[in-house]
Amino acid sequence: MSIAGGAWAAALTPLKDDLSIDFEAAAAHCRWLLANGAAGVVVLGTTGEANSFSLDERKALIAHLARSGLPSARVIVGTGCCSAPETIALTRAALDAGYFNVLMLPPFYYKNVSDDGLFSAYARVIEGVGARALRVLIYDIPPQTGFALSVDLLRRLRNAFPETVVGVKNSSGDWSAMDAALKAMPGFQVFAGSEAFLLATLRAGGPGCISALANVTSTQLGALMEQWRSEGAEALQAAAVARRAALSKFPTIAALKEIMAQRTGRDAWRNIRPPLIPLDAAQRGAVRDIASTLELSL
Amino acid sequence: MSIAGGAWAAALTPLKDDLSIDFEAAAAHCRWLLANGAAGVVVLGTTGEANSFSLDERKALIAHLARSGLPSARVIVGTGCCSAPETIALTRAALDAGYFNVLMLPPFYYKNVSDDGLFSAYARVIEGVGARALRVLIYDIPPQTGFALSVDLLRRLRNAFPETVVGVKNSSGDWSAMDAALKAMPGFQVFAGSEAFLLATLRAGGPGCISALANVTSTQLGALMEQWRSEGAEALQAAAVARRAALSKFPTIAALKEIMAQRTGRDAWRNIRPPLIPLDAAQRGAVRDIASTLELSL
Repeated sequence: MSIAGGAWAAALTPLKDDLSIDFEAAAAHCRWLLANGAAGVVVLGTTGEANSFSLDERKALIAHLARSGLPSARVIVGTGCCSAPETIALTRAALDAGYFNVLMLPPFYYKNVSDDGLFSAYARVIEGVGARALRVLIYDIPPQTGFALSVDLLRRLRNAFPETVVGVKNSSGDWSAMDAALKAMPGFQVFAGSEAFLLATLRAGGPGCISALANVTSTQLGALMEQWRSEGAEALQAAAVARRAALSKFPTIAALKEIMAQRTGRDAWRNIRPPLIPLDAAQRGAVRDIASTLELSL
Repeated sequence: MSIAGGAWAAALTPLKDDLSIDFEAAAAHCRWLLANGAAGVVVLGTTGEANSFSLDERKALIAHLARSGLPSARVIVGTGCCSAPETIALTRAALDAGYFNVLMLPPFYYKNVSDDGLFSAYARVIEGVGARALRVLIYDIPPQTGFALSVDLLRRLRNAFPETVVGVKNSSGDWSAMDAALKAMPGFQVFAGSEAFLLATLRAGGPGCISALANVTSTQLGALMEQWRSEGAEALQAAAVARRAALSKFPTIAALKEIMAQRTGRDAWRNIRPPLIPLDAAQRGAVRDIASTLELSL
């Protein structure tokens, strides 16, 4: 079984003033996204500051989202940690909560590691979880991990676990890497790591994208998904690229939280865990102008 | 109070065949190093595969080493995790076990982070631990984290926590970075991240080094420490650099574990957690020849 296609939002994680997770606000934000154009929500991804939370905090968020009724088919849970036992524990927590789609980082502390080592790391985790229901999207995000995952590694993982390793999120920012994966493995779900490549991915037979900006542009991306085979698609894609370019001068997560604060009037949306920090006053003003111009506040 | 100077070993973590930590062997290895030239042992650092273990596994190792009688003044515990709550928990576990010296990575998942953000991250952890006995070595290791820590950040941390932030381990591999830190902050303990810079660090007024290769060269480095002000020092330093160069073509941790396996006759020393993998047969033979030539097996 595959993961639903479309424009997924890599959900922000709202925090309280003591920087603990605001579980209610997180569930509400996810519900809002699902009701406003997002194909689904990836929780506890890079945009969700997953690695700034302890294992216990992450488990608590997963359990809360499940209790709040967020539907399994429209949720992907980020579960990749540095250590195999923690990745296994978090993946099991997702499954226990009823969430069978996970986005899994490779162990990312060591660099210049071999395909054999990465294959072994993923295999150990998948076998350690040992659940037939599990669906894994491999998370290829060189800007954070410091290394790219080869097509050969993806193919080996798919061949070894054909029912489990269903695809990859490619956050390289490099279309040629996404295109290569799409062409090399028809049927393997290669999600673009940003909406900049949404139309290109769909046209190449891919399932869609997982986007940080979708936190504030889910409506527009939902419209693009509805019309991607029609004439207006190019213009909608160009508008998505323009929104992305306009916000590219700011730290992404802080800028998105700033827009959410402005949109909702809730100051707490600016809370963010170090080493990330909120935008300063000048940046806030600039983001306000951009958001207004680009209709990011709708 | 400062941390003792000298050539510290960044201790390997021996594993059982199921890749769980071999606590007895870890304690024995640390005792051996302390008895054979090492000023002290850094446990759960990069060489110790810290980030491949869960928080619980790391806590268990710390507790075991304390029960085994490994003396506080000669131990530094690596406690830096991606998330603040886990870094706080692990640092408290070290203190609870009687170990007050810790080596602390910055939160390393996000890149291009600001000095303000990194300062806030460290401050939050130090205040969260809230222990006067704590002594923190900041861990600056760009090859793994993807970013270097500025002298300005180190100075801010030292000024804010003068009794706590006592130094830095600089694993940049770049002498000019170490030299800059030594010159900018007299009295701040700038440990070289490898023995390649041991003599230069001592001559510049620094405390010494924390070395991966010291797992198999502690005797030689101990001799260099004893003679560093004498005429023979240059030759001993040159020999250390030559040993390092000879092993540089192999993945460091796997090569060191291979040498330990050969030295002790215990095959289990080759066990290593993915994404790292043991050396292959050809590499084993090459390392055996090098170890024999360089007297690494003594």
